[in-house]
Amino acid sequence: MTQAAPAKVGQRLEDVDTPALILDLAVFEKNQKTLFDLVKNRVRIRPHAKTHKCPEVAKRQIALGAVGMCCQKVSEAEAMVEGGVADVLVTNEIVGAPKLERLAALSRRAKVGVCVDNGENLNALASTGAKLDIYIEIEVGMRRCGVAPGKPALALAKEILRHKNLRFAGLQAYHGRAQHIRGMEERHAAIETSAQQVFHTRKLLEKAGIPCPIVTGAGSGTFMLEVEAGAWDEIQPGSYAFMDADYAKNEWAAPLPRFEHALFVLSTVMSRAPQHAVVDAGLKASSVDSGMPTVWGREGLRYTHASDEHGWIEGAKLPALGEKLLLVPGHCDPTINLYDWYVCVRNARVEDLWPITARGAVY
Amino acid sequence: MTQAAPAKVGQRLEDVDTPALILDLAVFEKNQKTLFDLVKNRVRIRPHAKTHKCPEVAKRQIALGAVGMCCQKVSEAEAMVEGGVADVLVTNEIVGAPKLERLAALSRRAKVGVCVDNGENLNALASTGAKLDIYIEIEVGMRRCGVAPGKPALALAKEILRHKNLRFAGLQAYHGRAQHIRGMEERHAAIETSAQQVFHTRKLLEKAGIPCPIVTGAGSGTFMLEVEAGAWDEIQPGSYAFMDADYAKNEWAAPLPRFEHALFVLSTVMSRAPQHAVVDAGLKASSVDSGMPTVWGREGLRYTHASDEHGWIEGAKLPALGEKLLLVPGHCDPTINLYDWYVCVRNARVEDLWPITARGAVY
Repeated sequence: MTQAAPAKVGQRLEDVDTPALILDLAVFEKNQKTLFDLVKNRVRIRPHAKTHKCPEVAKRQIALGAVGMCCQKVSEAEAMVEGGVADVLVTNEIVGAPKLERLAALSRRAKVGVCVDNGENLNALASTGAKLDIYIEIEVGMRRCGVAPGKPALALAKEILRHKNLRFAGLQAYHGRAQHIRGMEERHAAIETSAQQVFHTRKLLEKAGIPCPIVTGAGSGTFMLEVEAGAWDEIQPGSYAFMDADYAKNEWAAPLPRFEHALFVLSTVMSRAPQHAVVDAGLKASSVDSGMPTVWGREGLRYTHASDEHGWIEGAKLPALGEKLLLVPGHCDPTINLYDWYVCVRNARVEDLWPITARGAVY
Repeated sequence: MTQAAPAKVGQRLEDVDTPALILDLAVFEKNQKTLFDLVKNRVRIRPHAKTHKCPEVAKRQIALGAVGMCCQKVSEAEAMVEGGVADVLVTNEIVGAPKLERLAALSRRAKVGVCVDNGENLNALASTGAKLDIYIEIEVGMRRCGVAPGKPALALAKEILRHKNLRFAGLQAYHGRAQHIRGMEERHAAIETSAQQVFHTRKLLEKAGIPCPIVTGAGSGTFMLEVEAGAWDEIQPGSYAFMDADYAKNEWAAPLPRFEHALFVLSTVMSRAPQHAVVDAGLKASSVDSGMPTVWGREGLRYTHASDEHGWIEGAKLPALGEKLLLVPGHCDPTINLYDWYVCVRNARVEDLWPITARGAVY
């Protein structure tokens, strides 16, 4: 149910209706360049479309050298292919007949990869007849999906080889929890442990004569640790292009670069009380699952709590009624998923409007 | 960016693709009847569309006697009017030129009310020339928007009377925090305090010769307390029709009825580990701002935590790969706002698909 865009191309940022999802193009482009320059000729980049949900962003990542997109959902992959992406990897297990049929249909329009962690699911994938790249997801510390590294992964690889329409494409090894471990040292230790599990599994596969073309994984909070560990061939960062208040709480030090905030929610002060201001951006405008948004460029102001359509601003030098505030979302992925449009801004002018076509692509 | 519906009319519930937003029509209708029977001839009902975002729901509420809809955003009100609702009250302050223009345009298509808590904002509303019902929002315990009860409200009412295009329609007195106070006694005390503030303000207005046509407010967690307090003419519940896991944590006792869960997120087990199952519904499928969803009808199973696209299920008798689980969302409003369609089910069959046309109507 597409909403009209809250802005027009050429409009000044200060005239954009609120709440609006603002993308600062100069910072976005700088973040892109930082990532691609850093890992070029070391690993492949397959950015995660679960974050941006937008073929316009995908096209720019591919122009910089990305091999394709990662997606979490079949519907997300469908939106990317519809938007012109030729190579998608669903970094997730896909279970259930309707989804498998859609995945099979998609594989006739694009190069499609998918993860497995279960033999029964593998058989269901095989029986679609679709030509698919199959990645075995191994559990490397997140305790979510994935088979155990080592022998269980080897057993699953052998099963894959029995199916003519399926190609064993490699391992999915993603440590999601590690992305948000605050300290560099602990984060490094987590990825080091994951790397040992990858090395061990790859060695078993090679011993069994099964080549493992690609090990893929890593996110914005760790990717250089994976690159330096030497166990990964491909990285899957998503948030790096945008950044959010949660990632800003991490310790950032070499070898990780410092990305900058490119994504904001523009809000308006809609009510004033002596001790607080109320903005028109609540938890339906900025997801609070990873904490409150922060107020951008206004020292002393804090966004202290949210209700569905309201946010409380407290602190020194409260803004006046009608003033606009830029907020840095607590968590970029679910915040972007609330909007139909990126309002793309350069030099305080709206330069473009990008439709978020995979917004709500949940199934 | 409308997503395709995850179901077809006539399909069995167990065949619906996941995640899907399921509305149990029998329970929904029972909740509706419970509310309308209980307060008929005592107060007017103006249900809140911020919860359901759907003209199909609005139509059914109006058929039962609702006087119109409450909305929180101009865009939400636009979607309701577009869907056939003739009377909308924006229970919120509307600030900024683009929004005021849209509100004025809407007032030429429907009866439109709006709240004020500030003289400057009142003048901006007046200068649109639009014919509007103006409600003064008074602060009755929520510490969000609203002028103080008593003299500040009286002063604002006098200002309203100076504008020919504006009609002083009454008071907005909503205690949002009280909805989620767990104990009945404390909730009752909160509403009693609000009622005293309403009585006091109404008396001042009457003494000044200013009739106060309607006092409106109240939500699903308290509305019978407002009805019995005798200070309100109109109630604004939204969640009562659906219910969620957060409201289920309240103590429910007379005079409040016990509504039942009519809203669910259908999910599929997509991965199994020895000690947990993973479902395909994470925080983009069920908002976690007010806590995790609960697992419906499966004693001993708990949804313990969520990532963007995954939910962890723990407990005794873990479900098998591919099994479907119904989840009760932690908070219905922001969960509904993630979906394009209600999959309406009766006797385990899909009976209808209702488009959530105000999904994402954030501005």
